[in-house]
Amino acid sequence: MNGAQALIESAISQGIEICFANAGTTELPIVMAIDKAAGIKAVLGLFEGVCTGAADGYGRLSGKPAMNLLHLGPGFANGIANLHNARRAGTPVFNVIGEHATWHRGSDPPLAMDIEGLSATVSSWTRTNSSPSDLPLDVANAVSIALGGRIASLIVPHDHQLALCKGGRPKPVERCFDTVDESEVKKAAELFMRHDRTAMLLGQRALRKEGLMYAAEIQDLTGCNLLAETFPGIIERGAGLPDIGRIPYFPEHAVSRLSGYEGILLAGAREPMAFFGYPGGISRILREDQAKAFLGTGRQDVLEAMGLLIDILKSSKKKRQQERKADAPGHPGMPDGDLDPVKVCQTLAALQPEGAIIVEEGLTTSMGYYSLTAGLAPHTILSISGGAIGYGMPCAIGAALACPDRPVISFQADGSAMYTVQALWTQAREGINITTLLCANRAYKILKMELERAGIKSPGIKARALTDLIGPDIDWVKIAGGFGVPAVSVTTAQELARAINRGLLEPGPFLIEIVL
Amino acid sequence: MNGAQALIESAISQGIEICFANAGTTELPIVMAIDKAAGIKAVLGLFEGVCTGAADGYGRLSGKPAMNLLHLGPGFANGIANLHNARRAGTPVFNVIGEHATWHRGSDPPLAMDIEGLSATVSSWTRTNSSPSDLPLDVANAVSIALGGRIASLIVPHDHQLALCKGGRPKPVERCFDTVDESEVKKAAELFMRHDRTAMLLGQRALRKEGLMYAAEIQDLTGCNLLAETFPGIIERGAGLPDIGRIPYFPEHAVSRLSGYEGILLAGAREPMAFFGYPGGISRILREDQAKAFLGTGRQDVLEAMGLLIDILKSSKKKRQQERKADAPGHPGMPDGDLDPVKVCQTLAALQPEGAIIVEEGLTTSMGYYSLTAGLAPHTILSISGGAIGYGMPCAIGAALACPDRPVISFQADGSAMYTVQALWTQAREGINITTLLCANRAYKILKMELERAGIKSPGIKARALTDLIGPDIDWVKIAGGFGVPAVSVTTAQELARAINRGLLEPGPFLIEIVL
Repeated sequence: MNGAQALIESAISQGIEICFANAGTTELPIVMAIDKAAGIKAVLGLFEGVCTGAADGYGRLSGKPAMNLLHLGPGFANGIANLHNARRAGTPVFNVIGEHATWHRGSDPPLAMDIEGLSATVSSWTRTNSSPSDLPLDVANAVSIALGGRIASLIVPHDHQLALCKGGRPKPVERCFDTVDESEVKKAAELFMRHDRTAMLLGQRALRKEGLMYAAEIQDLTGCNLLAETFPGIIERGAGLPDIGRIPYFPEHAVSRLSGYEGILLAGAREPMAFFGYPGGISRILREDQAKAFLGTGRQDVLEAMGLLIDILKSSKKKRQQERKADAPGHPGMPDGDLDPVKVCQTLAALQPEGAIIVEEGLTTSMGYYSLTAGLAPHTILSISGGAIGYGMPCAIGAALACPDRPVISFQADGSAMYTVQALWTQAREGINITTLLCANRAYKILKMELERAGIKSPGIKARALTDLIGPDIDWVKIAGGFGVPAVSVTTAQELARAINRGLLEPGPFLIEIVL
Repeated sequence: MNGAQALIESAISQGIEICFANAGTTELPIVMAIDKAAGIKAVLGLFEGVCTGAADGYGRLSGKPAMNLLHLGPGFANGIANLHNARRAGTPVFNVIGEHATWHRGSDPPLAMDIEGLSATVSSWTRTNSSPSDLPLDVANAVSIALGGRIASLIVPHDHQLALCKGGRPKPVERCFDTVDESEVKKAAELFMRHDRTAMLLGQRALRKEGLMYAAEIQDLTGCNLLAETFPGIIERGAGLPDIGRIPYFPEHAVSRLSGYEGILLAGAREPMAFFGYPGGISRILREDQAKAFLGTGRQDVLEAMGLLIDILKSSKKKRQQERKADAPGHPGMPDGDLDPVKVCQTLAALQPEGAIIVEEGLTTSMGYYSLTAGLAPHTILSISGGAIGYGMPCAIGAALACPDRPVISFQADGSAMYTVQALWTQAREGINITTLLCANRAYKILKMELERAGIKSPGIKARALTDLIGPDIDWVKIAGGFGVPAVSVTTAQELARAINRGLLEPGPFLIEIVL
């Protein structure tokens, strides 16, 4: 076999089942290896940001990496923004990037770039394959790193792809997780012993089902409140699961939300920081005098650490000081009349089926959605962890391919969705069940809110030109149709409800332009 | 004034007239400064690759930089592929990237990335502003660097944008060009003295009108042939200008084209290298035993160097050994019947008006266009210097804004155009006269050619899935309509001719889907 075949054989043996690709000349041997291999699906994205966003969605749902196949530096660069989101979400991702032949690289051909330099900005692990015979082990190591919730990027010169190679299914040398630091676990237990008003801030894998069950047990043992990061990569919700509040977006709201706690345990979560540093100077959301402890820092497995914490807490005498606040939100009712952001959220909340996966990138329109839905049937929410817009439409592809039996609802804003609009074509080609709520407020609304917050009441022509999406209005029904995705436009809650029901019922993708 | 206002004042004083922007919260003070300033136009791109590609087109035509305003690391990353093309084309570009407030940066907020690391992959000059009072000089230096045909990137923390600042219009410390190395000029002259069969390979500014007039004079003095790089950033052509052959794309053709020359002068051009390194091992197109000399290497001004060379040649006794081969191509006739790539090129060549700017990214469809058009009325061709697809539709925006009185013809392939399809919206909003020939062969045809070259006659299902653009077919008429660009679909040469004439006649953008 050749190096490309050895690479793909190794990837399959490490559990890789899907490859999101936009290949070029330097990746054709890998395309041919995928072509001949059983056990790996190939999905074309018409832009690399679609591929990397889809891999992010797939990894968030399945907990294991998809492979991205990307063309040299420019192809990788096009995928960086969504890899940034994946990195912040703690998503496992395995990138394979073709490189010029080793003997050709030095001639600095037109497409040559510093791929390692680009990769380092988002990858926890980057390697340029140095010998074709190392390819199986390079792949095994990359996948192992990725499985720890990280981005691993392997750069493979074209001549190494073509070289004769023995293949093999080596065990990785790199480990997914480091050993849990028991002193961290002890400190976490002490935090609960010492303080009455406590909260646990959950992030990344702690927000998946297993983590939430651990969190609920810790809550039972300590009476702590449970919170999630502002934009968790993935959070399981609904009946049977503890209700987890999210930290508000604007820093003054976040500070106010968290100020009452004496002690905070951060489990798989980073210390919360303001999204932006506004004049006034809030970076850290927590105060110095609030006690903090951490579980699952660095490369540790937060789930294992939570399990160990539970063992300690069970053997301690401390009784919990707080009553668990049982939120019992009802099923929200259906609104009617002309739509506004609140009614859009209410309509979706009223209709979303059990098992739905909500890819949330509605930004200013979807802000109210989360608080409406805690009491619904079980569902999963993905959000924009890295803040780089254009994650949602691709992410929905990966989610749908990871969970083909679950309905995916892609809750999108027009400005964000336009970043990776090409994703609609892949949704159509794959025939996956994605219902897109395309909230067309025809503006970068968040920027208008920011201008207001900065005291600018009436921006001039040029500021409006850079924040409005009018002149011309984007016709999302036509655009979706051009990509092969059926679509309708709605303006009232009743129309939206009918359209959501249609989208959920019909197989394949469907787009609802919600004119706000 | 504040830092943002000082930045914009300085930019305008350095000659910046246009800003392509997709701003976020960290750039809002700059948006407001642009809003209040006279003398700088703001153009919104719905994706950063549109902005950077438009700046590339603007810089290629005007010879001076546009400003890009980009949002943090992810926004810059989205613009990298087209900055890579601009870098390879030698286009002047001035990027301004917002950064988190200095006091907030260390908290590693969600959108934080290594912007300097990203910038270094494409910029010749990157600076993070270290004090608001330095902003005017930082801008002056960046613009000066850019004017030398390079990319200069200035990263500006949000608090520096808001800080009180004196402003000013400082002289740059950085220089556009280094002094010309006279020993290079002498060696160039000696090359022509010593060898009979010579060629001059022109690149970058040597392919603009002034450079071409110098080249014609050198040709008259030496009898050398004139050649251009395979994908020149910009080349002026047509009646009154010397006919410049382009080096073929595939390396074996390029070697054969250049093998007969004993001596080659590279003026503003890099030594030609194969686009890709195929098995067989051609990297360098020129042989060791072919004499080479260089003009305008590094940061030198190739035009000044060509002028000095002419002075030396005029004072020498050497007579030219070759007759200038006068190509006298006729005006190509109009084809008829169903379209194929050759007929598309013939139809365009037959109809393109004087002064047309052709943005060529038709790839396999436009391959025959160049050789048909040397004898036409004066026109300008831009091509894909860096090989990163998705450059054309944005580049056409910048070209049209730089030259509002000239018709722009955007000669596009479906696979490439889809990369930055959002550009159509900006074309509609600006109402610029761009006629897009969208060649829909519904495949990454170049990859199919590469597979054939590699001996793979019948790729399997997955390889076809990754190289075909069918299932569903993309409906470009609907997509263009969704962005506010009127469009028609054609299948015959007569229909194409009618559509081209309509597109050229009507103001504003127009798209012709050419089904191949």
